[in-house]
Amino acid sequence: MVQVVDVNRMVQWIAAAGVEARIMGIAATIEEDFANWERFDKAPRLAAHSAHGVIELMPTSNGELYAVKYVNGHPINPSRGLQTVVGMGVLSDVETGYPLLICEMTMLTALRTAATSAVAAKLLARHDATRMALIGTGSQSEFQALGFRALLGINDLALWDTDPAALAKAEHNLTGLGFEVRVATSAADAATHVDIITTCTADKTLATVLSDYMVHPGVHINAIGGDCPGKTELDPQIMRRASIVVEYEPQTRIEGEIQHLPAAHAVTELWRIIRGEAQGRVSNEEITVFDSVGFAIEDFSALRYVQATLDADVTDVDLLASPSDPKNLYSLVSQAVSASV
Amino acid sequence: MVQVVDVNRMVQWIAAAGVEARIMGIAATIEEDFANWERFDKAPRLAAHSAHGVIELMPTSNGELYAVKYVNGHPINPSRGLQTVVGMGVLSDVETGYPLLICEMTMLTALRTAATSAVAAKLLARHDATRMALIGTGSQSEFQALGFRALLGINDLALWDTDPAALAKAEHNLTGLGFEVRVATSAADAATHVDIITTCTADKTLATVLSDYMVHPGVHINAIGGDCPGKTELDPQIMRRASIVVEYEPQTRIEGEIQHLPAAHAVTELWRIIRGEAQGRVSNEEITVFDSVGFAIEDFSALRYVQATLDADVTDVDLLASPSDPKNLYSLVSQAVSASV
Repeated sequence: MVQVVDVNRMVQWIAAAGVEARIMGIAATIEEDFANWERFDKAPRLAAHSAHGVIELMPTSNGELYAVKYVNGHPINPSRGLQTVVGMGVLSDVETGYPLLICEMTMLTALRTAATSAVAAKLLARHDATRMALIGTGSQSEFQALGFRALLGINDLALWDTDPAALAKAEHNLTGLGFEVRVATSAADAATHVDIITTCTADKTLATVLSDYMVHPGVHINAIGGDCPGKTELDPQIMRRASIVVEYEPQTRIEGEIQHLPAAHAVTELWRIIRGEAQGRVSNEEITVFDSVGFAIEDFSALRYVQATLDADVTDVDLLASPSDPKNLYSLVSQAVSASV
Repeated sequence: MVQVVDVNRMVQWIAAAGVEARIMGIAATIEEDFANWERFDKAPRLAAHSAHGVIELMPTSNGELYAVKYVNGHPINPSRGLQTVVGMGVLSDVETGYPLLICEMTMLTALRTAATSAVAAKLLARHDATRMALIGTGSQSEFQALGFRALLGINDLALWDTDPAALAKAEHNLTGLGFEVRVATSAADAATHVDIITTCTADKTLATVLSDYMVHPGVHINAIGGDCPGKTELDPQIMRRASIVVEYEPQTRIEGEIQHLPAAHAVTELWRIIRGEAQGRVSNEEITVFDSVGFAIEDFSALRYVQATLDADVTDVDLLASPSDPKNLYSLVSQAVSASV
């Protein structure tokens, strides 16, 4: 039997501890797994591109557990009432090859993305950071805000989105969550007087959500929307001024903001800073960019944390045939065929 | 909502039409999809190897549907009461990226493997073939026998396995299914006076289940057990005497019996014979080998056929968060958090 965490169960699991506590738990698990970086099988995710989107598989293993996430990205989906991104994941036991858990990962991806962003920002943003711009206020934005409050104490937000309804939605939700919220009149306006800029837009194009002149010295940019070949958010000139941190360089070269830069342009992998083998922010004037595309180990950590903290009464589904004689798989059919004759 | 076909539902679905009818339906779907070969995204499967086995992902898409199978292979598993191979699959809509169906694929893989073997044998075995040796009588063997009876009319079987219990199990099941069954005393004995030899063993080693002297002119070998790097069943000398047919050459070069042959050794992909672009068997004396490792399109076809023939009352599971405003994913959490406070 395989445990199943559907959306309703996921919502219950989140509500039982609260969003911020769950993000903190996932963040701690990501830090632990990133610190064991060399134990993991790593590869760029496997993407199947089509006219309107992409379907991706993100597998990884640390030799004891194996995780894979199925996730799509279809920017056209909200216009037809669907989510841009839905996901589901499987966590397995490497020793037997048997799946342990099937989990919705639409909600969980939002939590793990916020957790990863906040883990990086703890190492890359100024220690006195208090204000963040959220550019792009779709499905991820509230989770990003809660992650930054949980891990960095950020409570002042400036919001911007080209979709007025999405902007009003985020203002409503975030005000209700106790944030100090300012609705900006443009991306440039949002980026004024902030310490951190989170860009989180979904267009599958070479957009320039953030122009070079909007970025002041000392700012940390948390760039999470550019995550496909041909899908970026930042003016490349910003990248040339910044210290760039990535999750897993081979994947980010394909998908991240750095797809515009020469392959030799220096970047630092986040796990090295977590382990103290590389430096995070080195001065108050430095511009830092976390060029985040989402990496399989983050999903592994999220699934591992969910499984470790689930209630015992989770629903099971039999996706694993279990004949009493393991070499007699046919016996499962023969009983049913006899019964139906 | 995503439809879920668990093991119980799969058994019901098989029993509703009978094993042979289901294998024939999958076989026809495989022939249709293989005939549209150039429409599919194709890549060797993604394998995560560990000490005791392998976990693999097998994705493919024809631009309308996307399928991925998760499958393990752990030869040690039966010794601890577990299946060597368990699998589960997802079928998705490429247009939206949304999963449509989650399906157990332990049973279904047995059906699609039998279907693929029989599709190949129709084109490669002698037309007057009546007798088959089954070498390796584990979980796959009854399904192989039923597939060959359904598509080729094979009813005479010679069985061999080094595990006496597996041999007795297969004899019992296959006699009950109306086959003429002879239990052999060795692989060589089983291979005497047969037209087709199916090798279906599970050791993850370079085994020689079938030696060169056992293979007479005119025989078709259906080699399905050698399907990993370092896991083969046939004496390489047999391969040098034979016309070799494979599913997808780049994957079979890595995993199949041909891993022992030079990379330039000629092989024919099955879809070309199905389309009439290459020849199947050309003489009664020719030795033919279907060097089968299992390819993603076969799983795609099986999932597509299951989905097309499912009853309407299939169980659903909500793995897709569906807030009324697609950009307000957080609303799903906020309701629960409020309720739990």
